[in-house]
Amino acid sequence: MIHYQTEKENGRLWFRETKFLPDYELKTESVFAQCNGYMGVRAAQPFSLVEEHRGMFLSGAFHKAYEDEVTELVNCPDLTWFALEIDGVKVYPDREGLVSFERSLDIYSGELIIHYIFQIAGKGQIEVENRRFASMTCKNLFVQTLKARVLDGDIKKIIVKTGINGQMTNSGVSHFHKSIARVYEKEVMELRSELEENVVTEAVVCKTSEGTLMEKEFSLKRRSVYGTYLLCPNEGCVVLEKIAFVDQAENGIGTKERKEALIEAAEKGYEGLFKEHRRKMEQFWDMARIRVEGMSGEEEAAVCFAQYHIAGMTPWHTNESSIAAKGLTGEGYKGHVFWDTEIFLFPMLLYTYPEEAKRLLEFRYKGLTGARKKARDYGFEGAMFPWEAGNTGEEETPLYAALNIHTGKANKVWSGIKEYHVTADVAYAVDQYYEASGDWKFMENCGYEIVFEAARFWVSCAKWDDKRKAYGIFDVIGPDEYTEHVDNNAYTNYMAVNCVRMAYGYAEKLKREKKDVFCALNQKLQIEKDLARWEEFLKKMYLPVPGDDGIIPQDDTFLSKPCIENIMKYKTSQIKQAVLLDYSREEIVNMQVLKQADVVMLLNLFPRLFEEEIVKKNVLFYESRTIHDSSLSYCAHAQACAAIGELELSWNFFQKCLVVDIDDNPHDSTDGIHAASLGGIWNCMIFGFAGVRYEDGILYLAPHLPKHWKCMEFCMVLEGVRVRFAIGGHKVVLTCEEEPDYPIRVRMNQKEYVLKGTLEIVKK
Amino acid sequence: MIHYQTEKENGRLWFRETKFLPDYELKTESVFAQCNGYMGVRAAQPFSLVEEHRGMFLSGAFHKAYEDEVTELVNCPDLTWFALEIDGVKVYPDREGLVSFERSLDIYSGELIIHYIFQIAGKGQIEVENRRFASMTCKNLFVQTLKARVLDGDIKKIIVKTGINGQMTNSGVSHFHKSIARVYEKEVMELRSELEENVVTEAVVCKTSEGTLMEKEFSLKRRSVYGTYLLCPNEGCVVLEKIAFVDQAENGIGTKERKEALIEAAEKGYEGLFKEHRRKMEQFWDMARIRVEGMSGEEEAAVCFAQYHIAGMTPWHTNESSIAAKGLTGEGYKGHVFWDTEIFLFPMLLYTYPEEAKRLLEFRYKGLTGARKKARDYGFEGAMFPWEAGNTGEEETPLYAALNIHTGKANKVWSGIKEYHVTADVAYAVDQYYEASGDWKFMENCGYEIVFEAARFWVSCAKWDDKRKAYGIFDVIGPDEYTEHVDNNAYTNYMAVNCVRMAYGYAEKLKREKKDVFCALNQKLQIEKDLARWEEFLKKMYLPVPGDDGIIPQDDTFLSKPCIENIMKYKTSQIKQAVLLDYSREEIVNMQVLKQADVVMLLNLFPRLFEEEIVKKNVLFYESRTIHDSSLSYCAHAQACAAIGELELSWNFFQKCLVVDIDDNPHDSTDGIHAASLGGIWNCMIFGFAGVRYEDGILYLAPHLPKHWKCMEFCMVLEGVRVRFAIGGHKVVLTCEEEPDYPIRVRMNQKEYVLKGTLEIVKK
Repeated sequence: MIHYQTEKENGRLWFRETKFLPDYELKTESVFAQCNGYMGVRAAQPFSLVEEHRGMFLSGAFHKAYEDEVTELVNCPDLTWFALEIDGVKVYPDREGLVSFERSLDIYSGELIIHYIFQIAGKGQIEVENRRFASMTCKNLFVQTLKARVLDGDIKKIIVKTGINGQMTNSGVSHFHKSIARVYEKEVMELRSELEENVVTEAVVCKTSEGTLMEKEFSLKRRSVYGTYLLCPNEGCVVLEKIAFVDQAENGIGTKERKEALIEAAEKGYEGLFKEHRRKMEQFWDMARIRVEGMSGEEEAAVCFAQYHIAGMTPWHTNESSIAAKGLTGEGYKGHVFWDTEIFLFPMLLYTYPEEAKRLLEFRYKGLTGARKKARDYGFEGAMFPWEAGNTGEEETPLYAALNIHTGKANKVWSGIKEYHVTADVAYAVDQYYEASGDWKFMENCGYEIVFEAARFWVSCAKWDDKRKAYGIFDVIGPDEYTEHVDNNAYTNYMAVNCVRMAYGYAEKLKREKKDVFCALNQKLQIEKDLARWEEFLKKMYLPVPGDDGIIPQDDTFLSKPCIENIMKYKTSQIKQAVLLDYSREEIVNMQVLKQADVVMLLNLFPRLFEEEIVKKNVLFYESRTIHDSSLSYCAHAQACAAIGELELSWNFFQKCLVVDIDDNPHDSTDGIHAASLGGIWNCMIFGFAGVRYEDGILYLAPHLPKHWKCMEFCMVLEGVRVRFAIGGHKVVLTCEEEPDYPIRVRMNQKEYVLKGTLEIVKK
Repeated sequence: MIHYQTEKENGRLWFRETKFLPDYELKTESVFAQCNGYMGVRAAQPFSLVEEHRGMFLSGAFHKAYEDEVTELVNCPDLTWFALEIDGVKVYPDREGLVSFERSLDIYSGELIIHYIFQIAGKGQIEVENRRFASMTCKNLFVQTLKARVLDGDIKKIIVKTGINGQMTNSGVSHFHKSIARVYEKEVMELRSELEENVVTEAVVCKTSEGTLMEKEFSLKRRSVYGTYLLCPNEGCVVLEKIAFVDQAENGIGTKERKEALIEAAEKGYEGLFKEHRRKMEQFWDMARIRVEGMSGEEEAAVCFAQYHIAGMTPWHTNESSIAAKGLTGEGYKGHVFWDTEIFLFPMLLYTYPEEAKRLLEFRYKGLTGARKKARDYGFEGAMFPWEAGNTGEEETPLYAALNIHTGKANKVWSGIKEYHVTADVAYAVDQYYEASGDWKFMENCGYEIVFEAARFWVSCAKWDDKRKAYGIFDVIGPDEYTEHVDNNAYTNYMAVNCVRMAYGYAEKLKREKKDVFCALNQKLQIEKDLARWEEFLKKMYLPVPGDDGIIPQDDTFLSKPCIENIMKYKTSQIKQAVLLDYSREEIVNMQVLKQADVVMLLNLFPRLFEEEIVKKNVLFYESRTIHDSSLSYCAHAQACAAIGELELSWNFFQKCLVVDIDDNPHDSTDGIHAASLGGIWNCMIFGFAGVRYEDGILYLAPHLPKHWKCMEFCMVLEGVRVRFAIGGHKVVLTCEEEPDYPIRVRMNQKEYVLKGTLEIVKK
């Protein structure tokens, strides 16, 4: 971590870049973004640059521009742009005159501060500061301030221009079919931008510091509205506060209410609003913070960075949208939702904000119609969840993606068709939620239906294998995308069986214990007739088991393929997917070489599926064949290696996953942060290092702290009770913040304990 | 003219800017654009700037993106962008290191040369030259070259990246619904961009100078394709030639032919193609050039500037499109065609390229269906030509335009509904064409029908005025748009009567002399039944005549309105439409204040309509009430004042219209050049100063050369014969370049002469 420095200061935790290096601009725009789960605003500089990619993305604001395009998260009208003219000289960071530059993100509050000193030729020196945050108190508020202070010279006139720019596109593709700009009472600028099924309205009030405003003027351009403020420095200083209210509600909050909310916000001003917002963020940190004695400041900052971004991408306000692979920080992956959400991001929310975790599952529940359609379209039963989702359950994976540059023909994207496992991943998350929360209401309203429909899908897609005398799942893609069209992928088969087992178990249990619920569900879904098929599936489904050498075959053919020569070359290469420069895709598919964890992922999700020895053997076996060309791989391996006590290896991967977004590679993260990897940091720390699992009502503890960690402290919510964990080298202390309804069973070192108030376990 | 300098050099006429002043960027992009009538490419710098507006517009490539948007000339995928990296350092004009900058347009050839010297920190100095032109030999070719030469320092690696960027929008509005990029044979990049009813295909070959290419690589981005060329300087120099073939033909020139044409062009290379192109341009200058002894170099350059742009906006290849108000140089006025074409631009083409002039009229003929529809829609008969046309005859004027910024309500645009006169303007041009060419075939195929249908419109929209006992035309807008909703606008009424008179005259003549033609037309249009109505209209239509003071009332109420106080303030203001800062639109409508020539325009079109004294009085009367807030006003007044012998006033306006696009105001012409004003320069010089009129088969000559002009030489094509004019202070010499079929009657100083070979007339 060289480009981004970190610093703790007065309750702030700063990430900072202190040089204007244009090559880093797009990356910094992503990683320093202001997000509150409703909106995400890239941390573009206020002033235009030669290379920039401004972006504001609103949770759920998807649109498909043309038949041949893909539904994508729309880049909404921009609020961040400012122009600044000092005594007739326009100020641009790219041009001569930039004396100093600093862009800092306070990870604790999410406030961004961009600080410049400009030398204005023949006029003097001026200091400019731009601050902004997306409010966690009121999801609709995006608040900014621009301050200019004369450091030397006699500057008389400062012109600030800013407004709402609806000329934004998603890389050249426009989405809004209509755009209406207006100005109310020579004060409020508004841009109303229409999609077919949605409206984005942005309203802005600008306040200037007392005694500085000489003149103001509003102007309309196509799809845009701007205010120009002629200011005269007061004691050398001018300040413009820009309060923006952003919403997507056609019939929700009406113009009048919006205006009132905006005016009220403007009265509070930047400082007032920021104070409220910060208090809310403090609550978040109180819940989510992982404190580690023995971690360096930078490592700590990187962990907080991950949490900050998860806070920013979580839809706190709705169950109508979920979390995208890039959160709300960029156009990457079109803002689509992948398995990343349920498998990588869900756990942290589940154990800290279970209500929000539940909403992510409700989002999938609402998507059942689309998932059922997808299943039908491919000739299956039940629900087949989309590999890529927008704000419905329909499949949004482009059928054809990157073109073959030489033939001009589009390469078919198989993930949407063949990467079945997402359907089991969703069901797995439902089960995890039920385990941790005991929320039977959710299960009755949504959970059972998801699991039952997923089970139906699995049973319908399994085929009888006469040679093996068992069912198998054929022609799939597992998590490892360097192998395509494989049969009986271990991850997929185990997850499928888990899903059907859950479904069968739930159904049987409901029949026994909650007849009315079963009847209602059966009336709706007619599952009774499926029970025998599920039972048959569970009995006869092929599950790959460890061979004589203890290795679980990743699929039917993997182990018979040759290894790749000199895999270290690719594992250590600075270039992502460097292996594709030496081998064709077809060659790679036919070798023992993995892009990312596959069997390892399975062992992460079911750590007690095999004996410790087998787990260890497999993690090491597959890791040695993995290039980690996916950002999902480091965190998964860090967790897996921690769990098997391979602490050095684990630490190595952990270090890498900590900096996936904040390392020195300027070309990474340019189109958004890597959400799954950020989620994986929590999973590695809690499931891996702290060794916590909550399964079947038992809290398993098997800490494997890195040697230089003295103590690790964090909170988890278990069955509605917040439990504080303090895991040290010699003892573990658990404290319930309130009395649990019934004691929590804890198992560690093969012994069982009971947690009611505080529990201290001394390690062997 | 300070920002743009001019220089003659070796058969070149340079317009030049020698400083990189970012404020002028958008203006220079327009005024230095490369246009060949088929394509227009803004003269953006090759390297990205903070503020730029790249644009390529293709004749006829219109599209309406959304229901609430207007049909507009589409900003097509960009070919002009280059990135340059010198030993790892990216080069940008905006950033530090720019030692010198020069952008030059050779008006004679249309070649653009952009020259930079960059200081690469710690590496050395490098000279970069970018040249380009749009071929007049093959309309589809856009040819560029980028040359980098090391001036000092040891530079090893130069990376050039360029391609086709389909992420362009019209100010944030995208048009292409589909975009397919590919690369053929690791050589030809192609981007195929689809509109609903059109396809734009751009194919590019890049050639590098011998022995410099180390590596090349192609990459696809959304809607774009790029080639990256790693070059090693050969004797300190690398050159990349980029030959692009652009076309709109779905089923026309196929991929194979296109490729062959492109490969053939690439073989010729920049120099070869440029040579061919230049020869073609020389032919143009031989025809179009106006030589004036006594004019300054800058004035001469400005005149050539106008001709260059007219050459660039004329559709040499088709009658499917016409000339837009901004030519092909920008997004202004959406690429629409106004009366500007027939009244301001048509004359020069008529007398130099009559075939092309005819095509403009054929374009209107093809638009009759739309014009008939418009007439019907407004309850009229015949054809009502659109105030703004795209590539059909349908009205494209937005019904609502600029929003009232405070109410947010759209202001209704009345021009499309009430600016009737365009229908008479088109008919006037038809008559002019027939007069000058004697092309009866055109008349029988198109011309009569246009005039008859236009006449029908006028008759149907006239209403009986019981007070006046005459027909009137009510609630219209004349050319002067500072008065709206007026009755009996003089320009409109006279033009209407002229139109109907033509129609009646043509019809009667055909009946007498070409019965079969009349019958055919009558069968198609049933005009027989209209003749009586036309006669009645001609008898009873009210035409404003000069009052006792000799003043022709501009409309029924104009002369009764108060004059504006201190009009000089607005006439001399540097700010366009400054009057609107002091008065509301409603107040202006109720005063004797004009935006632009109205009655004066009428007198320009019919110089012999009234006695000389009356003409003179009216020109001066109305000029004194005109602010010239329209770019159409200076040239019209320059012409009118020349015609009445007010040479000082005329010269004053002429000076102003010469620099409408090239003056020092950086905020003008940013969205395209002012086509009509450029056309008006020719009109002022030929009709005004040279005093030439060709009417009823007679060439009238009444020269009023500015005092310091010794001689004026130019060509005109009259009835198919090219005549050279040499107008001196003491004599006029006319020379036919070939024997005319029958002698041309010439009238000067109330005497009549006959021109067969050479005619010399000594002035009184």
